[in-house]
Amino acid sequence: MKIALDVMGGDKAPVEILAGAYEALRVGAIGADDLLLVGDRERIEAEIATQGQKPVFEVQHAPENIGMDEHPAQALRRKRNSSIVVAAKLMREAKVGGMVSAGNTGAAVAAATLLIGLLKGVRRPGIAVTFHTAGGPCTLIDCGANIHCQPDDLYTYGEMASKYMTGLHGIQRPRIGLLNIGEEDAKGSPLVQDTRKLFGESALNFIGNVEGQDVFSGRCDVIVCEGFVGNVVLKVSEGLGQYIAELFASQVKDHAHQNGGAIWKEVARAILGRLDYAEYGGAPLLGVNGAVIICHGRSDRRAIANALRTSKRFMDADVNQHIVEGLAGGPVLPEPPAATTGDAVPGGVHP
Amino acid sequence: MKIALDVMGGDKAPVEILAGAYEALRVGAIGADDLLLVGDRERIEAEIATQGQKPVFEVQHAPENIGMDEHPAQALRRKRNSSIVVAAKLMREAKVGGMVSAGNTGAAVAAATLLIGLLKGVRRPGIAVTFHTAGGPCTLIDCGANIHCQPDDLYTYGEMASKYMTGLHGIQRPRIGLLNIGEEDAKGSPLVQDTRKLFGESALNFIGNVEGQDVFSGRCDVIVCEGFVGNVVLKVSEGLGQYIAELFASQVKDHAHQNGGAIWKEVARAILGRLDYAEYGGAPLLGVNGAVIICHGRSDRRAIANALRTSKRFMDADVNQHIVEGLAGGPVLPEPPAATTGDAVPGGVHP
Repeated sequence: MKIALDVMGGDKAPVEILAGAYEALRVGAIGADDLLLVGDRERIEAEIATQGQKPVFEVQHAPENIGMDEHPAQALRRKRNSSIVVAAKLMREAKVGGMVSAGNTGAAVAAATLLIGLLKGVRRPGIAVTFHTAGGPCTLIDCGANIHCQPDDLYTYGEMASKYMTGLHGIQRPRIGLLNIGEEDAKGSPLVQDTRKLFGESALNFIGNVEGQDVFSGRCDVIVCEGFVGNVVLKVSEGLGQYIAELFASQVKDHAHQNGGAIWKEVARAILGRLDYAEYGGAPLLGVNGAVIICHGRSDRRAIANALRTSKRFMDADVNQHIVEGLAGGPVLPEPPAATTGDAVPGGVHP
Repeated sequence: MKIALDVMGGDKAPVEILAGAYEALRVGAIGADDLLLVGDRERIEAEIATQGQKPVFEVQHAPENIGMDEHPAQALRRKRNSSIVVAAKLMREAKVGGMVSAGNTGAAVAAATLLIGLLKGVRRPGIAVTFHTAGGPCTLIDCGANIHCQPDDLYTYGEMASKYMTGLHGIQRPRIGLLNIGEEDAKGSPLVQDTRKLFGESALNFIGNVEGQDVFSGRCDVIVCEGFVGNVVLKVSEGLGQYIAELFASQVKDHAHQNGGAIWKEVARAILGRLDYAEYGGAPLLGVNGAVIICHGRSDRRAIANALRTSKRFMDADVNQHIVEGLAGGPVLPEPPAATTGDAVPGGVHP
């Protein structure tokens, strides 16, 4: 199954989006037959020529574009030939299995819910963002797909992110924490307390309530929260990372002449690279009947290439199949597929 | 009016708490007559002798201690001779005007609400934490005093933090942002949307919805949110700061021999000092009829000294009087007092 790449979405579209497609091909994250470019055909062909590349990918014409600030549901209705709507319809018709977009996140979520359809047992999809921590990757779900949640929605998030961490990161029985303002059982809102009971009665590897610092502590592999809180956590982390990067840059400027700039730059890269969520391959919208990967609006070619890799690995690992089985109380996941234990993904041609 | 210092509360009590009192005296943040030490008299006197200090501060005996994990309301009832309860009662009787505690936060909030009493017009107190940003201090309220809020509680938070920023940081007409998951008016939960309307109709300097990254962007002086979200933001920031500090330490270790350790340490201090909330003088519990400053449980002497400074400046600037006037639709704050324009606080003896 191919991956539909929304060439028109994002602050740096179409230049960096297309460059990302060729970057993914170059590093073997995808094969040429894995990708379907969705967007304005003329602009795509012109930009490919400008970049000095060969037109190796299939193109699906979609002349309209949904702006970053447009109202999601309205835009879906009005712009039926937009890249997001066209890609979502291809997915509904099972003509593609994956979709990568750096466009309007709300529109991507709405398209997934209204046009593609959700997995059996899922009422609300959730955006899962993976943070680097001292103890390995930690996935926070939901980072803003929905702000009206019931306890069983939060439970579903935990089940879905758990299967995602097994499928893509090879983590068996991921440790799931519930984001709260204290670890004691009695802490938190009714939503959190009722969700804790659901997790406690489940077969999932639930470690109990966790606090904000645990996003980076390495104590758990999955942290569940409702979308308002998750979105704030994501953006606070981005804002603090950006602030630290600026502090660091000014310090490097002040001191580099004393110590040789090369080492400073190496250190800055080592530290700030850990905070650069673009490196981590986009955020899956879990619960949708497909491998939908949402990218930051400011994504560059590297971020797009990584998101394409994530979408392909998501399909190869049958994450959605495992989610449906998990939600149905089905069998426990078998050993993870070999491709998920490292970053190397088999390239080559996939039908 | 004196400040009651809870000598028994905190991970490093009583050693660092008492050391903080003497540090505050040494740097002129307070005078000897400004302080009342509340705790076990024998332990206090022994520790002062151990530290080689003179017993210059008045002591109020309070032999019991509320542990960091005790249930707040139960502990208040059971431990009537605990340092927090004794300090709160002294404040209710107007025998002290300020209170600093690094003990059980929930107990301090409960004591403030149940024993001290709230300001006229305030239904719920809020914890206000000030973050350093590229554009100056930014105060986030509420960081976890309450998780059950109505729109008018959030509005009150904005009014209170605004007066606090004027009184302590000399910021006229502080810019107030409402924490949301998008800037558009239609975004967010009903709580946030209804609160936005209240701010929009007020005379406060409301700049509209802001997002998580704005805690560090310098766009606003005050950010308002409900306590669950604020607590998570505070702890995520602490966790990320800690993680970056560890990354930095390992890089410094790897590279210091190549570049001379002194400069590295200087840079680390310059960057990480900005993330060290201990430097910022504790978090006022706004809305209480007194200058109650809550400190992190792991506070050291420097944090305690800064919190004592904050408590004194809070009283000197008549912040609570301005809050009450603001909530009553009273007069706009006059020019800020001279003491609030910098970090230098007049020391000396205050009755």
